[in-house]
Amino acid sequence: MKIILIGASGTIGKKIAETIGKDHELVRVGSKSGDFRVDIGSGASIEKLFKEVGPFDTLISAAGEGHFGPLKTMKEADFRKGLDSKLMGQINLVLTGQHYIRPQGSFTLTAGVLADDPVRLGANLSAVNSALEAFGRAAAIELENGVRINVVSPGVVEDSPHYFPYFPGHVPVTMDRVVAAYMKSAFGAQTGQVYKVV
Amino acid sequence: MKIILIGASGTIGKKIAETIGKDHELVRVGSKSGDFRVDIGSGASIEKLFKEVGPFDTLISAAGEGHFGPLKTMKEADFRKGLDSKLMGQINLVLTGQHYIRPQGSFTLTAGVLADDPVRLGANLSAVNSALEAFGRAAAIELENGVRINVVSPGVVEDSPHYFPYFPGHVPVTMDRVVAAYMKSAFGAQTGQVYKVV
Repeated sequence: MKIILIGASGTIGKKIAETIGKDHELVRVGSKSGDFRVDIGSGASIEKLFKEVGPFDTLISAAGEGHFGPLKTMKEADFRKGLDSKLMGQINLVLTGQHYIRPQGSFTLTAGVLADDPVRLGANLSAVNSALEAFGRAAAIELENGVRINVVSPGVVEDSPHYFPYFPGHVPVTMDRVVAAYMKSAFGAQTGQVYKVV
Repeated sequence: MKIILIGASGTIGKKIAETIGKDHELVRVGSKSGDFRVDIGSGASIEKLFKEVGPFDTLISAAGEGHFGPLKTMKEADFRKGLDSKLMGQINLVLTGQHYIRPQGSFTLTAGVLADDPVRLGANLSAVNSALEAFGRAAAIELENGVRINVVSPGVVEDSPHYFPYFPGHVPVTMDRVVAAYMKSAFGAQTGQVYKVV
């Protein structure tokens, strides 16, 4: 199975790569490293990636940035960081990737716990994550040829302790459980699901 | 109470105006009509609106457009229609309006049922609506001086029969119940809530 992993060198991506790299043809994609490079904030860069990589079976995205900062001083330009990168970037992976994915393939995108459990400074990522979850539900009913889509929505992960102070009372989730959710999405049979790992 | 109503001549907005126009100082705002005009897709236009209208107690937004069309042919430019108008537009009303709203004031934004109950052609609006719902939950915990925010998320409304064919099995909701949700948000005491009218 040919699997494209976007964000392959990130905190979550590298754990996914370790788990699936042995048994599959894994195409590691990153913004600064990997078999291929992509700027997820650029539709043209995403189009170029798919043209270069060619047909594939599975895409897993653990990529994209958002803005984390106080609402009181937030500007449109701040808010658009998350819209352009984590949201539009991952959605472009589906809008463009649907024309390159093989029948019965799957997309897995990454949202996050802020979608329904907000913290201070997190308004942009709450909106972005919730939008991704809803997009997954909606795209699932239109994708053709048996192509599936799910969204993994993890809590703050144990490997990102620098985030802990911003998530009071959020219990960090183990990387094993997070990786398991991506495996369920990529190798299971469900579609239109949001796998919340909290 | 000085109430700014964005989208005052729309299907939902005009019913809200009928209900609250008698008892309050209502500032009707539209893209093409009203006491003031705004292009909700432009942050500069929104900034200008607040400067002209001045301090206010309550903002109700029933405005913003999204893209409705098949996923198979959807492009980034299509998807950005909803991001720029219904999503970023309504969020700009809060990001900018928070600096003009009086203490104990409130914001009410409009999402929609596609957030969690998708239909064909609706992927953009599913994402946009869900993002708005999450933004409301998140902004509520950061707004200061007792300012509240809620989101009304209506099903397809009885006054928009041209949408019915695109919402098979969705039972149209009465305008009275939809308007009631805006009243609960604007004149009640809750914050961070999503009022689903389905």
